[in-house]
Amino acid sequence: MGKWMDHLTEVLPEKQVMTELADRHSYSFDASFGEYMPEAVVQVKNKHEVASVLKLANEYKVPVYPRGSGTCLSGGPLPVHGGIVLDMSQWPEEIDVHADDLIVYVSPSVRTGDINQAAEAYGLMYAPDPSSAHVATIGGNLAENSGGPRGLKYGVTKDFVIGLEVVTPEGEIIKTGGQTIKNVTGFDLTKLIVGCEGTLGVITEATLKLMPKPPAVQTLMVSFDDVRVAGQAISKTLTSGILPSKMEFMDQPCIQAVENFRPAGLPVEAAAVVIIELDGRPEAINVEKELVENIMKEIGATRTTVPETGEEAERIWHARKQVSPAIAKIKPTKVSEDATVPRSKIPDMLDRLNEIKEKYDVEVVVFGHAGDGNLHPNVLCDKRDQEEMERVELAVEELFQAAIDLGGTLSGEHGIGTMKAPFMESELGEAGLDMMKRIKDSWDPNNILNPGKIFPEKGQKLVLRNE
Amino acid sequence: MGKWMDHLTEVLPEKQVMTELADRHSYSFDASFGEYMPEAVVQVKNKHEVASVLKLANEYKVPVYPRGSGTCLSGGPLPVHGGIVLDMSQWPEEIDVHADDLIVYVSPSVRTGDINQAAEAYGLMYAPDPSSAHVATIGGNLAENSGGPRGLKYGVTKDFVIGLEVVTPEGEIIKTGGQTIKNVTGFDLTKLIVGCEGTLGVITEATLKLMPKPPAVQTLMVSFDDVRVAGQAISKTLTSGILPSKMEFMDQPCIQAVENFRPAGLPVEAAAVVIIELDGRPEAINVEKELVENIMKEIGATRTTVPETGEEAERIWHARKQVSPAIAKIKPTKVSEDATVPRSKIPDMLDRLNEIKEKYDVEVVVFGHAGDGNLHPNVLCDKRDQEEMERVELAVEELFQAAIDLGGTLSGEHGIGTMKAPFMESELGEAGLDMMKRIKDSWDPNNILNPGKIFPEKGQKLVLRNE
Repeated sequence: MGKWMDHLTEVLPEKQVMTELADRHSYSFDASFGEYMPEAVVQVKNKHEVASVLKLANEYKVPVYPRGSGTCLSGGPLPVHGGIVLDMSQWPEEIDVHADDLIVYVSPSVRTGDINQAAEAYGLMYAPDPSSAHVATIGGNLAENSGGPRGLKYGVTKDFVIGLEVVTPEGEIIKTGGQTIKNVTGFDLTKLIVGCEGTLGVITEATLKLMPKPPAVQTLMVSFDDVRVAGQAISKTLTSGILPSKMEFMDQPCIQAVENFRPAGLPVEAAAVVIIELDGRPEAINVEKELVENIMKEIGATRTTVPETGEEAERIWHARKQVSPAIAKIKPTKVSEDATVPRSKIPDMLDRLNEIKEKYDVEVVVFGHAGDGNLHPNVLCDKRDQEEMERVELAVEELFQAAIDLGGTLSGEHGIGTMKAPFMESELGEAGLDMMKRIKDSWDPNNILNPGKIFPEKGQKLVLRNE
Repeated sequence: MGKWMDHLTEVLPEKQVMTELADRHSYSFDASFGEYMPEAVVQVKNKHEVASVLKLANEYKVPVYPRGSGTCLSGGPLPVHGGIVLDMSQWPEEIDVHADDLIVYVSPSVRTGDINQAAEAYGLMYAPDPSSAHVATIGGNLAENSGGPRGLKYGVTKDFVIGLEVVTPEGEIIKTGGQTIKNVTGFDLTKLIVGCEGTLGVITEATLKLMPKPPAVQTLMVSFDDVRVAGQAISKTLTSGILPSKMEFMDQPCIQAVENFRPAGLPVEAAAVVIIELDGRPEAINVEKELVENIMKEIGATRTTVPETGEEAERIWHARKQVSPAIAKIKPTKVSEDATVPRSKIPDMLDRLNEIKEKYDVEVVVFGHAGDGNLHPNVLCDKRDQEEMERVELAVEELFQAAIDLGGTLSGEHGIGTMKAPFMESELGEAGLDMMKRIKDSWDPNNILNPGKIFPEKGQKLVLRNE
């Protein structure tokens, strides 16, 4: 070990290499579960440094774990086998908008929210809006293929990437895709690398697609006294010729939690609310707003609130963003899931979640991007209570199975990482998983880049308890 | 050879195996260049038959060439190394719309236009609209990641595929993706296989995304007396907050050809026309129509025609569709290209095309999906004239180089196939191409599935002349 560490300071400026325990500790966890201590942390600032680190890592067979700001909910940056954490957050920030081509070039360290802000100066929009956009880096978003509320109408991170500069696991610098929207020159490595959770390459630059910013938005908040009806209202709207930019769901415990945390005037008596955002030309939105109000009345909503000012609308969306911090106040530990089902199965999934809650006597609250079937059931618990955590593990396992049973998937937007790896084969089958593994093995023969993620290790099981 | 052929009739019903010369001849060409005779043609009708053929092919090391209706413009289905053509066109047709989930399940033999028609019955739309949608199969569209005019606003085939059933090159049946819009469970094999030109798997079922059909459309036809200004008008529109569903370009020779072929009232005096389609709510379209008219007046268009009835608009779009057959009347051979550049580079690309035309004294006409930079320069020639074809080869090579120089790509929507393989390394670099090859090798170790496509063979060059 000593030898590769000495070699590190030869290929990188000394102050970019950290080996002190205190420094390493800050890189031992992310926003998910588990703590793993790396042996060294390196702060890279250009593609050549990344290439040098990866070549060295291959020479000494040391694992390398790329990391942005560490907001990952599935363990993406966790150094589960020690080795080197590749901290990308100190990379010089670059946001270069080419308005005429409707594209922007960004460096991996840029915060996602800043990209949209830069685009707005040109009347343009970068659509993906994960809730962590104000802290998370675009590099992390690309690695995990992050989603967000606007995914309903506009798609997720992957849908907005047209080109990448990537350092391969063996340290070669390649370009994928390009600067054009249409491109069928060979295999789509761009869309393979986006969402690979940092296992196939380190992204050092990205070319993202921008679009004209819709000139107007309109929010509606709809209350229901039955969660199933709220679920049905979503399918009903989407089959009525209307495609809202956002359709978010919150159940009663979430509403209650937000009101206890920072009162926002949400309807605490409602069993659930659906918050809708329409965007487009004001003339079109006025028509769609009335159509949505009628649909909601017909299907049995108890109330539809239509904020009249931008500030009122902002207050509702702010309340939605407070769900995560608010429910974190209820109990010390929050297991945040993102199992996703076909839209029409949302009412069934809500039923299954209710059954699971009863069966294992665990506290489950539900919110999320219901418009695209991407719910976020959160199990609230206390990780110091080993007996409770055992029940939580069983509940989470059953929750994954429920999503798969209903034709859904383990993860809509958080990624597989460490936690969901044991369940991959149940969704993909042995042959399906093998085809993924073949790509990994052919690109990274020494298994250097982010090992221990996506692919289950022998005998691996879901563990939320401390060892 | 005899042995594998005997074996074929053991794994498939006899009448699905064709070895007569006359039958094989119909499968020796597509809509591009070159004729290659297969040794056998098999008509497969279910995934198990596909799996059996591929397992047998691996046993005997015989190449297998999947084929839809053979409309490919880049040689995708050509059996360049003989072997077996896998005819997918006789597969039972299945179009199963699940309106509540906004998805449709289709079998590979279905014609793409029929999918959109089935969706319309539910007020929904399947957006990708390649010009060959009335003949091409969705299987071929998936293999090639076909585009079309509506790609400007809605994206290409790949953007509408959420799940696949695939037979791997070694004959394993796998599922990729699923039924949900958001899905980050492992590597995105779906988007890797779509556009792989049939080299990584045989698609036996696809789950496609549908969307609400926009309630109204409005066409505008804009004339210019300068092609460069026409090119600028495209960028100008797109940076004015308007995203049309289509923006098509035709230069004067194309306009002239259509009017000579089937008169449609196009402005023959114009240097170029841009045909625009806006879609959405009628209230919004009315506003956007006026905005576009103003932009065109400001930038120096000579005339903007706004058809008042659906029939008039239909006549304009029909004229656009006639370009390909119309220019085919000018000279016996048509080399149809689809090199694509960033939108802002369209005027420069038009200049470069003009230079190439002069330099090699060849006839080049230009039309295409200019809104996304995807022009179709067509070189009109006579393949019996060897001297002319030599100049055409040089002109086409320079045209590819021009696209790459301008930050563009070899192919926007037609694919690499046989013709463009020799130019892959100049766009991707050695390491970039190697990463693609690693995937191919790991999935298809015996190089059974569609060999001779995408990856250049030793010493391969562009050849349009007959040997």
